[in-house]
This record gives sequence, C-alpha cells and structure tokens, in this order.
Amino acid sequence: MSSNLKEQAVSKIRFKDFQDKIVSADEAASWIEDGMTLGMSGFTLFGEPKVFPGALAKRANEHKIKVNVYTGASMGPDADGVLAENKAINLRLPYQGNPSLRKEINSGEAKYIDQHLSHTAEQIRQGVLGEIDFAIIEAAAITEDGQIIPTGSVGNSPIFVEKAKNVIIELNVSAPAAYEGIHDVYIPKDQGENLRDAIPVYDISQRIGSIGIKVDPAKVRGIVLSDRPDIPSPLFEPNEETQKIADNLLAFLEKEVEEGRLTEKLAPLQSGVGSVANAVLSGMAKSKFKDITVASEVLQDGIFDLIDAGVVKFAAATAFSLSAKRVATLAEDLERYKGKVIFRPQEITNHPEVIRRVGVISFNTALEADIYGNINSTHVNGTHMMNGIGGSGDFARNARITIFVTTSTAKGGDISAIVPFVTHVDHANHDVDVIVTEQGYADLRGKAPREIAQIIIDNCVHPKFKEQARDYIKRANEKGGQTPHILSEAFSWHEHYAKHGTMLLSEKKK
Amino acid sequence: MSSNLKEQAVSKIRFKDFQDKIVSADEAASWIEDGMTLGMSGFTLFGEPKVFPGALAKRANEHKIKVNVYTGASMGPDADGVLAENKAINLRLPYQGNPSLRKEINSGEAKYIDQHLSHTAEQIRQGVLGEIDFAIIEAAAITEDGQIIPTGSVGNSPIFVEKAKNVIIELNVSAPAAYEGIHDVYIPKDQGENLRDAIPVYDISQRIGSIGIKVDPAKVRGIVLSDRPDIPSPLFEPNEETQKIADNLLAFLEKEVEEGRLTEKLAPLQSGVGSVANAVLSGMAKSKFKDITVASEVLQDGIFDLIDAGVVKFAAATAFSLSAKRVATLAEDLERYKGKVIFRPQEITNHPEVIRRVGVISFNTALEADIYGNINSTHVNGTHMMNGIGGSGDFARNARITIFVTTSTAKGGDISAIVPFVTHVDHANHDVDVIVTEQGYADLRGKAPREIAQIIIDNCVHPKFKEQARDYIKRANEKGGQTPHILSEAFSWHEHYAKHGTMLLSEKKK
Repeated sequence: MSSNLKEQAVSKIRFKDFQDKIVSADEAASWIEDGMTLGMSGFTLFGEPKVFPGALAKRANEHKIKVNVYTGASMGPDADGVLAENKAINLRLPYQGNPSLRKEINSGEAKYIDQHLSHTAEQIRQGVLGEIDFAIIEAAAITEDGQIIPTGSVGNSPIFVEKAKNVIIELNVSAPAAYEGIHDVYIPKDQGENLRDAIPVYDISQRIGSIGIKVDPAKVRGIVLSDRPDIPSPLFEPNEETQKIADNLLAFLEKEVEEGRLTEKLAPLQSGVGSVANAVLSGMAKSKFKDITVASEVLQDGIFDLIDAGVVKFAAATAFSLSAKRVATLAEDLERYKGKVIFRPQEITNHPEVIRRVGVISFNTALEADIYGNINSTHVNGTHMMNGIGGSGDFARNARITIFVTTSTAKGGDISAIVPFVTHVDHANHDVDVIVTEQGYADLRGKAPREIAQIIIDNCVHPKFKEQARDYIKRANEKGGQTPHILSEAFSWHEHYAKHGTMLLSEKKK
Repeated sequence: MSSNLKEQAVSKIRFKDFQDKIVSADEAASWIEDGMTLGMSGFTLFGEPKVFPGALAKRANEHKIKVNVYTGASMGPDADGVLAENKAINLRLPYQGNPSLRKEINSGEAKYIDQHLSHTAEQIRQGVLGEIDFAIIEAAAITEDGQIIPTGSVGNSPIFVEKAKNVIIELNVSAPAAYEGIHDVYIPKDQGENLRDAIPVYDISQRIGSIGIKVDPAKVRGIVLSDRPDIPSPLFEPNEETQKIADNLLAFLEKEVEEGRLTEKLAPLQSGVGSVANAVLSGMAKSKFKDITVASEVLQDGIFDLIDAGVVKFAAATAFSLSAKRVATLAEDLERYKGKVIFRPQEITNHPEVIRRVGVISFNTALEADIYGNINSTHVNGTHMMNGIGGSGDFARNARITIFVTTSTAKGGDISAIVPFVTHVDHANHDVDVIVTEQGYADLRGKAPREIAQIIIDNCVHPKFKEQARDYIKRANEKGGQTPHILSEAFSWHEHYAKHGTMLLSEKKK
C-alpha cells in the first residue's frame, strides 16, 4: 500500500475511530472462510469493491474456498469475473452479467438465483437467505458520525450493512468527493410485531433518508484502500434498428398524449439498460416531452443531456451505468447535477408501493416475446441464462404502462425474436401492455389473446416471419381455446433453428 | 313488481330523492345499447345484480345486442350464465368461472381479458378500457346521504360508480340489513398532476374509508328491485387428498415458527377459494396458531369458525364465498362478527403496497406446476381457459411467502399436475416460494433451479411419475444451462396424454 494512498484515505475517513482500521486486501480476504455469505456493494458495475474481490479470488484459488456472493446487481471483471475464474462462487444472487460467471452458471458449477431486484432485501430481512457473514462496501468517504458514503450505486448495501455480522469498507480514494450528498438511504422496518410505515416517496424528488449508510462501528472489521476508477460500460450509440425502435416507442407515447391519457410531462419513467434504452433517451432530447421525472433503476449517459435539454427535471435510481466518456467527466457532472439526481436503495427504487403510487411508465428489453405477449427476459432457448430478470418484474407488474422492446429478429435475421411460444416466461402477458420492435408497436391493453396475436404479428413481427406466424395461429384457432396453440409445434421454430440454422421453416441453412 | 316488494324497498331507500327512481328490470335493460360497456358489482357470486342481467339477456337475444361486461370477479348462472347463453357478451373482464361463459370464451365467441384483479380499477382510471356507460350495482340499502351500501362484495363497484356515465342500483330487499357497516370503501386518487397518498392500511383491522359507495345523484338513472338471496357456493368438505395438502401446508408454517421466521400469529393470511383452502382453514382451527389476521380476497365458510376458535382475530377481504349452510345464517353471523370482518374494494385488498407492507402469506391453487416452480393457474393444455388468474398474481409477486397448492395428480392419476414444462405460465418461478401437494412440500426459497427440480420431484411429484421426471432432468442436465430442458420433450407428457390417455410415458390407455 503506497503511503500516498493511505494519506489520501485518512482525510476521507472522517470518523476518527476508524482511522486505525486500515488493512491490506489480503488480510481482509484472510477473514473469509469456506461457505461464508458475502453481501457486496455494486450494481451495473458501479460502486462495487474493486480490490478486495481479487484478493479473495486468490485466497479462494489457493485454499479451495467457495462463498455465496449477494450483490445489488451485476459486477465487473475484477469482481464477478475474477471470482468466477477462480471457482470462488458457490451461490450468486440476485443478478449478474459477466461472461466468465455466466459460463460457470450454465455449466452448473456456480448456483445462481435470478431474483426480482426488490425481493432480495426482504428475503434477507425475513432470514430465508441465511446470515450475511461479511458486507463489503465500496465507499467514497466515511462521515464524522461514521456513515458510509457509497459511490456510484446504493443497491442492497444498506440491508447488507444492517444484517451482516462484519463489515469491510473498501474506501476508494479516487471516487469523486461529490458523491457525498447524492444518496438517499431509507431502510424499511422488519416485518413482525410492529406495524410498518408507508415508503414516504410521493414525489420522486423528495429526499426521504440519510446521505450515507449507518453502521454499528463495532461491526467494522477493516478498511481496505483502493484508487481504481469507476468501471465504464460500453457506449451504446443508436444504430438504424435501435433508432427505429426508439421512434416507435416515442410514437406510442405521443399517441397517449394525443388521446389525453398522458400529458407532455408523461409519468415517471423507468428504462432498462442498453442500446434501445439509450436510443430512446436520445430521441427524447428532441421530443416535445418536458419536465419528465425519471424513476428508474439505472441512469445511463443520456440522462445528463436530457436534464440540460429541459426534458428531464429530476432522476432517481439506484446506480449509474456510464460510458468511458461520462466516467471521465463524472466529478464535475456530479457537482453540476446535484439536487437533480438521487440514488436510493434498490428496494425503494423498485418498490411495488412506489411504482404503483406514482404510476411509472416502464420499458425493458425482451430476449424474445411470443405472439400472445409473454416475455422471455433471461433464458436463451429456455435453458441458458443470459443475465437475469433484474428489476423488470418489479416494474412490469406494478407500473402504469409496461413496455417491452426487442428487435424483431436476431442472428442476422435467422432468428425471429417473436415466436409462437417463448421458451421461458419471465413476464406473463397479464403484465405486458405494449411490445415494440423496429417494425412498429402493438398496444395490447384492452385486447383478448386472439386479438393480441393478430396485432403483434401485424405490427411487430418481421415480414419474413409473418406468413408462418399467421399459419400457426390459423391452425391453432381451429382447435379453439382462449389462447390457441398447437403444443407439438410450440417450439418448432426453435427446433428448426437448432437443426437448420434458421427459424424460417421453409429454409435450411445447414 | 309486487307492491309488497316496493314497500320494503322504500324503507331501504333512505335518500328521499331516489324514492321515485324505481323502475322495472326490463325498463332498465331497455337503456342498454349494442356495444355499451357495463360495470357490474359481483365477486365470487356474491353481491352481483340478480334481476337486471336476466332482463338484459332477454333484450340482447331479441335485439342481437352485445355488451362489454366488467365486474369484480365471477358471477353466477343468473348473471354470467344467462348473458353467455344469450350471446350477450362481446368482451368480459377481469375474471369468470361460469361453465356457459367458459364455453363461449374458448370457442372465441366471447372475448375475455384475464387480468390481475387489482389492475382493472387502475386501467379504468387511466382510460385504457374505454368509458363505462352503465354501472349496475347490487345494494342492501341507500343511506340518507345517498351512499350505496353494497351487499356481499365490494369488488370494483366503487370505481365503476365513480367513472360510469349512468348508474343503475339493484336494491335487494332480502339482503341482511347487517351488511351496513361491514364495508370500508376507499378509492385512490387518479394518477396525474396531483400527488397520490399512501394507501393508509397499516394494521389490516383499521377502517380507512366510508361505509358505502358515494354516487353523484344525477347519474342514478333507476333503481331495480330484487328479493333474490345471496348465491351459495359449493361446500368444500375436505377429502383425504385435500386434507393431506392442508396438513403439509400447516407443517411448513409450523417449521417457519420453529425456525423463528414467524411467530404463532403468523403474518396476514391470504387464501384462494376452493377445497384445499377450506381444508387448510379447517386444519388451522386445531392448530397452535392464534390471533391471526386474514388479509384476503375472499372469505369462505371456515372464517367464522376460526374467529370463534380464537385463531383469527380479524379478517379483511373484498367478498364472501359461502356455502348454503352459511348463507342461511348470514344475517345473524353478520351481526355476531361485526367489527371482526371488513370488505374493501379489490384494488385495496389486492394492492401491492398493502401486500408488501404487511407481509402477506399467500396461498393459491395451481392447475399445474413444473419441476422448476413455474405455475399454470388458468389454461388447460395451455389453450383452454378454466377460470382466470384472479388475484393470485397481485399476491404472489408481492407477498412475504407465496405458496401454491395442487394435488400431485388429476383425472384418476392419469395426469401428473407437475410436469417438465407448464403449458401456460401465470406465475414465473421468481414468484413462487413453496409448492405443496398431498405428497409433501417443497421450499424453493434460496434455491437455484437445478436444486428446485430435485426437491420438487423428491417432495411433491406423485411416486408413479418420479422416475420419468428424474429421467427428464438427468438428460436435460447433460445439455447444461441454468434451467436445463429438452425443448422437443418439454410437452411430451401432455402429448402422450392426448394420444394415449395417460401421462405415464411407459403406458398406453388408448
């Protein structure tokens, strides 16, 4: 540890009792035993410990140790990646997105519980996910009264710190000082004998909690130092297809305004992460919408431009997911947008109470959809995990309008993203209001299944797959039912692709 | 109309301005035009109009009229039945359970939107289900200030009355006077420019609303009179199988108490309707649980016995579903249990905010489950609608513990209710904590999919289907994945049954 690093750290550890708690990452890792459960900060690569996991991975490799790793959401190569590569993970929850870990999960080497992101804290509170042995939390600073100031995410850190037997703080001296004041930490009471309060978010921009995570000082075993910068995500520049999807989604929202169901302020907006979400945000900068509130899980690059453009007036989420360009200017951006951006625990951003109350408009990406509006968000071919359901289920069930977006085809057009029967259902059609592809949008509200199949095929399916989709429902309808299907052909498009390299039933590519 | 009926009615119409509004059912029906949307009271056969629908069905038959019928939930033969038999229904939502209507739905003659029961009111509020032309509401009385006192359900009546252009009251003179005071009508504000309040239910037994439904007097077009009694549901006496399921479910709850995750007061309880729910309630009367609060959708017969036994101290729901025996004593029961039973609008009983806050334990019946814990609640063979999802999704997503119950087999043992892949997913495994059959229970919490398959097969599948289930997952596991499947065999059990009269792959019965 460089003496310079330690010097910088001491000025950020403003709670005097903690200043002698600095230890090396290796020493902190040595406290971890086989079978322990760790609660780590981190969400979409932001706010995760960046030094401790490497030390733990080394120890795990040397001593054949496996641990359970609970987080906010996905972690990067220096956390999930290095742990997976060293076979250090027994059980992982509630979300991941790392290629090395994905491989471990799909081979059955690592167990993975793919959870609604608002559920984890409640399950920990109820005691059904076991005890948390160590919480490992990245911090930007420690306040005079011992509060941990998180960095670029809050995630599940508050519940980890509350319930863990021991806490390790990874103090990141390179984290912008302006992170302090951006967090709004509110922890619901345990369920039990005492009545619980309402979650007091009525206006998304209200502050309801503290600027940091309160911790029992006796539980803090050590402070590890880091100077690694925030981890950027890929920059998702719109391409022709994602731009069309964004245009179609915006056309739907404009129609809602036109018909008087929404105003130009829309309703609090949640958007998933990725290229379509980014294209929609870019599109909004040029739209007639204004004074929008964002009530999301993750804030991407576009959010700052939208605030500048007057389109967004306030944004709440639990984490950043920023490209290298925005990471570079983060310190000044945090200063500039102070009071317009806030980070809450994920159980609050994704809380069914808040989502239903404020009437969120939610849009998330589907891996595949079916002609009746069911959505697969997670499993390739119904078997192999891609990332996870994330918070999409928290929003989809309780939102005012639930939208799923996908390109109509994948793999150069050989796969139709809209199939007769999805191979895994994450969102049943009861929860799905609108489906958007680059072909158009299908508004499923107020429609029965046979009508839904019709408008999804007409508006969203790629032209090359329309005929075989119509043939399927024509023959299925002859057999009757509320949701006509031919079970023996439900997955025939997938099977044809596996055998012949295309879902086009009239073609064989192999 | 008998003069005696009218005389009785006048004493119940305590709002003087309404006393000259009495009309015949035929006259009221004559106001209904083709294509109109009607919002009717009624939930699990309780509280529905019993005279108006017959008159409407007659008119529909004579004039080839079709209407959209929105309700709380299921209606009986004199409402859904007679309307369906006369081809009077264009679109029906959000739930039904009538054999004649089911036939119309599955043939495609009537359109049916199977909705989460807390969603309908919000969708009406947002304007996406069109305008309500007439609300038709069964009443036990009309108060001095013009409030409609509902009968055995509240359902969606408050939102129908608020949003309808016209209101028809069907005053039921035979409804017990003691219905007055049992309702607690609270209507959330519209979403829009103004901030919404919290739903102020913290303790389930708190009263939050009015005793009746407030109505703009100018909208009340007419009052139809009825003296038909409440409609009883079948009496579900426990049999050997349902008793075993109940015992297994109670064993799970006892384990939760033993492990300190619940106390003997459990947590507010929601139970579905039917034989298993009734067997569980009967079993509870002899259990060590006490002072339980019921936070349910429907109250069945057993609830009164449980209050007598000191097991239940308070029960809130939106409707009764009672057998003939309990209907016979309803007037005195309502008096006796006043202050211990309350009926709220279904958007409040099923509100995600309330369910998450109080931490409901939810149990509902599955039509089929799969080895990974996905639940089909609605579609036979993935195609034909049975009843609907009802409120199970409102509870399952947001409850503290979500339990699904089913017998392990059906059709005399030829069908396994637990299959490799359900033919329709209403509840994705993210929402399912525990599955119970007469064989045992499987606690899925904190388990990954491969483990889930193991314990469901071990604990819940019928012995005669265990071997073929194990063979399926063994071969599926070889192909890898988070959720191993063989897509070409996913529905093979269903297909074998269709061809050979049994799901046992080694047998052929036809």
